[in-house]
Amino acid sequence: MALDTTIVPTTLPGGKNATAGKLIVAASELMIERSSIEISLSDIAQKSGVNSALVKYHFGNKDGLLLALLARDAATEVANLEYLLAQPIAPTAKLKLHIAGIIRAYHRFPYINRLIHYLLHETSAEAADEVSKFFVAPLLDFHRRLLAEGIEAGEFRAVDPVLFYTSLIGACDHLFFGRHAMSRASGVGPITDEVCRQYIKHMEALICDGMLNPVQQGSAAPTG
Amino acid sequence: MALDTTIVPTTLPGGKNATAGKLIVAASELMIERSSIEISLSDIAQKSGVNSALVKYHFGNKDGLLLALLARDAATEVANLEYLLAQPIAPTAKLKLHIAGIIRAYHRFPYINRLIHYLLHETSAEAADEVSKFFVAPLLDFHRRLLAEGIEAGEFRAVDPVLFYTSLIGACDHLFFGRHAMSRASGVGPITDEVCRQYIKHMEALICDGMLNPVQQGSAAPTG
Repeated sequence: MALDTTIVPTTLPGGKNATAGKLIVAASELMIERSSIEISLSDIAQKSGVNSALVKYHFGNKDGLLLALLARDAATEVANLEYLLAQPIAPTAKLKLHIAGIIRAYHRFPYINRLIHYLLHETSAEAADEVSKFFVAPLLDFHRRLLAEGIEAGEFRAVDPVLFYTSLIGACDHLFFGRHAMSRASGVGPITDEVCRQYIKHMEALICDGMLNPVQQGSAAPTG
Repeated sequence: MALDTTIVPTTLPGGKNATAGKLIVAASELMIERSSIEISLSDIAQKSGVNSALVKYHFGNKDGLLLALLARDAATEVANLEYLLAQPIAPTAKLKLHIAGIIRAYHRFPYINRLIHYLLHETSAEAADEVSKFFVAPLLDFHRRLLAEGIEAGEFRAVDPVLFYTSLIGACDHLFFGRHAMSRASGVGPITDEVCRQYIKHMEALICDGMLNPVQQGSAAPTG
């Protein structure tokens, strides 16, 4: 199956991509409304006003549609990464903006996280390859370039990009993927805007300065 | 369904728990041999020499058996946490040993991670509650006590335990859960003993000292 992961211009008024765009927007809105990726083809058809047979025509099947949706959102995020890297600001400032950007993206599109896990682990090897190609690879490449820039500028110590990617993405991902489990433990509430703000602050401080007491360490005051 | 998550002494030579113990050991060994949690009741029966009908008798069903296996491994880890907390060493040293302990436990029992995700997300609310009770809650409680000890000793700055749990467990978990996806990207190899050692070193340094260059920050040399 050839998966169509071309970015579909969703606002195009007519032409052959307008239908595909409507289906993607409908799937996205349904998943946000329901806080779940469990949506049916007939739900998507009803929401979009498009015949469900056209899902097969445009995307092969429902997984193809979900993959195209994830590709659309990944393209937005990758464009943001390129924009960030080109800014005339210090690597440490870019790193903090990046941490906040990841957590906000997961919060704004709560289905992204579940879609990634679903497409990586429960569908085909082709779908997993696609997710890796448009999501994992560009993000890892961004980390390689940001770390090199920070080390070059003398702001970062030498950090392996693959290990860095694993720890940062794992930590951000777990707020959303693991909260489900944690919510059953005492003292853990749902993820609100305020929890996201706290987690962004926590991650910025942890990744930049660690958790040792700066006074004890004899270092300068924390910059955060 | 009442899930039997009592810790089964697997070395017990006789009595009613010996059979249950054999089934748990067989399931564990099969999952390690195959690097997969996809094992059938008949595989477990053959490996253990126990009739598969006894799975139903002892555990209700296969998910009950998997839950009992995870409970067995969680009990070992929780005992290790209590032992660590009682040691007459500095909180920072305990934190580093804890980070290494989590990563090594995931590496030694590669099925733990997948079992947790499976039982939390793809079975019943009862199973998810059990996983939370014997795995998430004790670990979160350990973090609360370790952080309090470190702040009291002046070694840690104030860090929220729930946010800390999320970032540390997420980062450790992702080496194993997310590597699957990353392995399709360039420059990412399989998880070997050496990769584990590198990740332990990376995480100890990141959690304790962050990634800013200590020279640039004007702090003392890193302690790691």
